[in-house]
Amino acid sequence: MEINKNGGVTSPKGFQANGVHCGIRKNKEKKDLMLLVSETECDAAAVYTKNLVCGAPITVTRKNLENGKARAVICNSGIANTCNADGVEKAQAMCDLAAQYLGIDACDVIVGSTGVIGQPIDLEPIQNGMKALTDGLSENGSDAAAQAIMTTDTVQKSVSVAFELDGKPCQIGAIAKGSGMIHPNMATMLSFITTDANISAEMLKKALVWGVSKSYNMLSVDGDTSTNDTVAILANGLCGNERIEDENENYEIFCQALFAVCNYIVRMLAKDGEGATKLVICDVHGAKTEEIARTCAKSVICSPLVKTAMFGSDANWGRILCALGYAGADIDVSKIDVSFISRKGEIVVCQNGAGIEFSEEKAKEILLEDEITVLVDLKDGEAAATAYGCDLTYEYVKINGDYRT
Amino acid sequence: MEINKNGGVTSPKGFQANGVHCGIRKNKEKKDLMLLVSETECDAAAVYTKNLVCGAPITVTRKNLENGKARAVICNSGIANTCNADGVEKAQAMCDLAAQYLGIDACDVIVGSTGVIGQPIDLEPIQNGMKALTDGLSENGSDAAAQAIMTTDTVQKSVSVAFELDGKPCQIGAIAKGSGMIHPNMATMLSFITTDANISAEMLKKALVWGVSKSYNMLSVDGDTSTNDTVAILANGLCGNERIEDENENYEIFCQALFAVCNYIVRMLAKDGEGATKLVICDVHGAKTEEIARTCAKSVICSPLVKTAMFGSDANWGRILCALGYAGADIDVSKIDVSFISRKGEIVVCQNGAGIEFSEEKAKEILLEDEITVLVDLKDGEAAATAYGCDLTYEYVKINGDYRT
Repeated sequence: MEINKNGGVTSPKGFQANGVHCGIRKNKEKKDLMLLVSETECDAAAVYTKNLVCGAPITVTRKNLENGKARAVICNSGIANTCNADGVEKAQAMCDLAAQYLGIDACDVIVGSTGVIGQPIDLEPIQNGMKALTDGLSENGSDAAAQAIMTTDTVQKSVSVAFELDGKPCQIGAIAKGSGMIHPNMATMLSFITTDANISAEMLKKALVWGVSKSYNMLSVDGDTSTNDTVAILANGLCGNERIEDENENYEIFCQALFAVCNYIVRMLAKDGEGATKLVICDVHGAKTEEIARTCAKSVICSPLVKTAMFGSDANWGRILCALGYAGADIDVSKIDVSFISRKGEIVVCQNGAGIEFSEEKAKEILLEDEITVLVDLKDGEAAATAYGCDLTYEYVKINGDYRT
Repeated sequence: MEINKNGGVTSPKGFQANGVHCGIRKNKEKKDLMLLVSETECDAAAVYTKNLVCGAPITVTRKNLENGKARAVICNSGIANTCNADGVEKAQAMCDLAAQYLGIDACDVIVGSTGVIGQPIDLEPIQNGMKALTDGLSENGSDAAAQAIMTTDTVQKSVSVAFELDGKPCQIGAIAKGSGMIHPNMATMLSFITTDANISAEMLKKALVWGVSKSYNMLSVDGDTSTNDTVAILANGLCGNERIEDENENYEIFCQALFAVCNYIVRMLAKDGEGATKLVICDVHGAKTEEIARTCAKSVICSPLVKTAMFGSDANWGRILCALGYAGADIDVSKIDVSFISRKGEIVVCQNGAGIEFSEEKAKEILLEDEITVLVDLKDGEAAATAYGCDLTYEYVKINGDYRT
């Protein structure tokens, strides 16, 4: 299995994509409309936000994916098309436009929107942009598509993974956008994944739910569960493997490749969390159950006091113990060990739930790095989990203090 | 019932208090040790943090309050005495010192600590400070005591309420400290309450649990449930009312007075949340149950995106709907109305779950005030609840980025 950092949704065979500025956003430098299409019909699956307030695009996508088939994705940034009286109509109209320009059925289109909630979306710029968007579709269009779905993201998120099924070269590629309103327990943010593997919609859904539970759902930027989060996957089968229809060996290989893609994207999303200067990972080991490990890891990652300490490169391990203590998990706090790890090394700061002497200088050196792992050993069992987050900074406050203007 | 903003824990008859700088903190201007004592034995009760990592002082206080009696409180700031191997011994030693200097039983002492977690507490400055602390005890000592428990608080928190029981003048007074690691579902932070009412320990506990559920437990500054939070109340009975031993009319009067004190303190705590520039209150009405109303109100108050929008005086009501949507409560999002209220007026920004036209200028004027109420009508029932919080600012990040140094 090989990760290609320059890959994306057009890395698998038979996919084309593009992104343009159509005018939803005022800034003409910023692309705001993307299109992704497969040359053949795909098996497809998606997972969505668990927020009761959910975007109109999700309503339409859910309906269109009922038959497990899709062929294209259209998505805009700038406006979330959520909490608008005419939202579903507009989301449907976006599917209709994509279908018309691509010559496919509107019910084969996945639609997404990301941006401000509660402002009506104007279809006119989308209509006007469709020709250029469609004309520019290309097998090199993944970057343009990835750029068109960015909101406060500072870097484009995309990746692909190459592997083999039945001796045939196969790929999974993805693009995604963050970077605020990101919190576990849902399919976080927007992520579109493509593959040329041949796999049934049912197994695709199963693989996606599993992959998301270990990646997107273990990510938190700010604890806000967004209204529009969607992770959708399209599989066009062009790699030519024997169709995966049960949990056989090829399914396992596919799952591992899908996880590699999700994991890579999630690390990018965490690192580019709004205002973030650091990727913060919490590895919890020695838990009685995986659920306990997950709960503990997420609690540490979500704590504003841990996040600000990471921003300040402050080895304030007491806040980590505090976050473990209020996680609501069945743990014995008097057994817990805590270490900090980065490229600069590892330092143990707490053993058996109490502080130990350590070099503040060494700790500072480790914590000044831009990728920090908080290693927690509960010494209470065999289960483990990893959660992904970032530090909390002045910039987060600045970005979100006046987002709409 | 009359609220006295200049009152405190020595407002009720028979209480003396003091606060001094003994040397736990480096800054000599900052008092770091307080003592509070009643001239007679008190009925007493307390509620504590639900964090599994809980401070050694809580272990000792819990034991000392088993018989429902107490007479004094000793508390330091600077060091939390939490996650230290010898913490319980040290907390016990603080009770012993208070008992020795006051000539009372050590098991009648409530002990508290607040500050950095995981650093050992040094008893020497406390020993050295006990004489001055005890010599200075006074009926005017509430302010000194309140100042001695402050950590990152920028203002002292104290209040008293005067009322009558059986025609006799009675008072309840309180001091408290905030201002980070504050989050619902526990007795938030440190608060010591005194009263000269005559009430059994059992009824005192019942009143305290009720009052805390509607005040301290509806407060969130940053979502971090602290390790040392304690609200303790001492009742010395000197006002001379007939002892309250069941839920009679006097109990109701006492509860209302206690709630007034708690409510006042909680508003002060929220407004002085770390880095806060604004008190943000969320009033949820029209809920099917009080639990739903509480869950929704707390979700809005805790959302970092709502908090940053309040900091930016941005009428971003979509984030409020978003926070209601992920609260996990049984609500119909298509019915929700949202308004913003301050001294400058009221503005409706969302009706039936969708945006309506409103004057951004008027909204800005309202949101620029330092006390904002977010009014949510779920239009789904009769229950209501109120939660208290603050905005999220640059200062919060600054304060917590390097707290220990």
